[in-house]
Amino acid sequence: MLKKIAEALADAGNIAILPHIAADGDAIGSSLALALGLSGAGKEVSVLLEEQVPQIYGFLPGLEMAGVYGGDGGKYDIAVALDCGDIERLGSRKPVFEKAAVTVNIDHHTTNTGFAMLDYVDTGCAAAGEIIYRLFGLMGIDPGKDAAICLYTAITSDTGGFRYSNTTSATHIIASELLKKGIDVADISRRIFDTVSPGKVRLMGEAVNSLELLENGRIALMTVSCEAMRRSGAADEDTDGIINIARNISGVEAAAMLREMENGDIKVNLRSNSYVDVSAVASKYSGGGHIKAAGFTVRGGDLGKVREMLLEDLRGML
Amino acid sequence: MLKKIAEALADAGNIAILPHIAADGDAIGSSLALALGLSGAGKEVSVLLEEQVPQIYGFLPGLEMAGVYGGDGGKYDIAVALDCGDIERLGSRKPVFEKAAVTVNIDHHTTNTGFAMLDYVDTGCAAAGEIIYRLFGLMGIDPGKDAAICLYTAITSDTGGFRYSNTTSATHIIASELLKKGIDVADISRRIFDTVSPGKVRLMGEAVNSLELLENGRIALMTVSCEAMRRSGAADEDTDGIINIARNISGVEAAAMLREMENGDIKVNLRSNSYVDVSAVASKYSGGGHIKAAGFTVRGGDLGKVREMLLEDLRGML
Repeated sequence: MLKKIAEALADAGNIAILPHIAADGDAIGSSLALALGLSGAGKEVSVLLEEQVPQIYGFLPGLEMAGVYGGDGGKYDIAVALDCGDIERLGSRKPVFEKAAVTVNIDHHTTNTGFAMLDYVDTGCAAAGEIIYRLFGLMGIDPGKDAAICLYTAITSDTGGFRYSNTTSATHIIASELLKKGIDVADISRRIFDTVSPGKVRLMGEAVNSLELLENGRIALMTVSCEAMRRSGAADEDTDGIINIARNISGVEAAAMLREMENGDIKVNLRSNSYVDVSAVASKYSGGGHIKAAGFTVRGGDLGKVREMLLEDLRGML
Repeated sequence: MLKKIAEALADAGNIAILPHIAADGDAIGSSLALALGLSGAGKEVSVLLEEQVPQIYGFLPGLEMAGVYGGDGGKYDIAVALDCGDIERLGSRKPVFEKAAVTVNIDHHTTNTGFAMLDYVDTGCAAAGEIIYRLFGLMGIDPGKDAAICLYTAITSDTGGFRYSNTTSATHIIASELLKKGIDVADISRRIFDTVSPGKVRLMGEAVNSLELLENGRIALMTVSCEAMRRSGAADEDTDGIINIARNISGVEAAAMLREMENGDIKVNLRSNSYVDVSAVASKYSGGGHIKAAGFTVRGGDLGKVREMLLEDLRGML
């Protein structure tokens, strides 16, 4: 099927590439790489985005071919949905996709619904970027340094820098080929993994200030109050990953972050490192998740009381 | 020369492997991998260490062949110095090396002095682990899963998880082969990169609490007093990398960490992100370093005064 897609793209004149809404490193990197490769092969290409590209990806080559979709309603020979599990992930750009003469869906999510004329879903790929790399091979496109930067960004983003369990032997083979193009991996890695907003750094400080190590350091608990959120100037999404500060402390088995929301709810994030099943705790409070990562919300709760209940539950599981 | 080393090892009966003092992930991982490979080929192998293996590497296979050298003075057919730039890096184990019938030096440091009968130094390798992988190839040793875990640890440690500029196309090829052995990259990566001591986490909190963002967020300054160090319970080595909290804040060009030492000195760490030459600032105070990473010490300084001087210097360079 990827070969059919390669042939269809070779025959097309103008092509729209559509990454998913709230595009991440893989969606943006894959889209720009494909755009660079196809425009190098003489195609007219547009990358239509739902939102502005996040600042952190502002260094990517090919951004001159990308823009936020303004409802102009152009008509394309081919529209490619990239890294989208279903058609709703196209947001306001769904009509552009549906109006195209040929629709293509290239993705790696197990949940992909197969919504195009030509669907290619490879769940064994860690990133959509891996599929684009192989598509280039089928089309006889040799990615230059610019496309290599985009593909490397796509792959390193979706594998957490080759650290997640989705990383395969093939992922490293592709990285090896991309490095031959002379890309600066130290620079790309620093931009993608090491850049933090001032608000998030201050929030990290607030979280550490609240850190309690209990039960001989096996339980780590952090509490973020409304005031702490306000003091830090952090945005809501800056709370992502803060729980890992507690989880990563040596000796910790169960980690919890209690967050007081503006509406009075208490949001609880739970993590474990080896044997504690935090999803069991979460489901007791109508929450959910996995064995090592779960969460729940207590409506209109009291921070101190939630803390006590939770500690009792966690102590019982050590 | 690596072929000669392979032949010498094939001929030997008992072999000592000596990683450098204060062994890191590459030194320990390479040594244990070599020990596993050679003992699998029927050799009697000992890994002689200068110190206990750091707890973080306690998961590595092959540790049963390793032990802290107790001055017993065994005699070996071959002694292999691994990842050692010069013979002094062997510490108290220098006599063991010198007494061996054949001495081997396998390393990747540009500064290597070539101190053995058989020296193999490949400065193009990101890690000594890459050389051991190739040595296995020459010896016809197929690394099993255990040796693959050790080699992956060696390589990912010395490349910061494939992120440093020493990472090459060949590094990824080797990683690709190691992944075929069924190693758990998520687990290894978490153990190596995500484990932090309680003291270091508290020190991060102290550093963030002191954070000042100046000149429209282009200068980030952190101050760690003696009291803050004591409160955190952090060890001296826990200060490593703390400066990156400031450097990684989006918009920051120059970052500084001022640390008050117990003897009254002020130790200053400097980093820049693109154009500021912090080594110029450091050399003004008899310090040194590189354009983007430098430092200096003010003997018996006053935190407030050093802060003022430094800020004036940094402002002048923006």
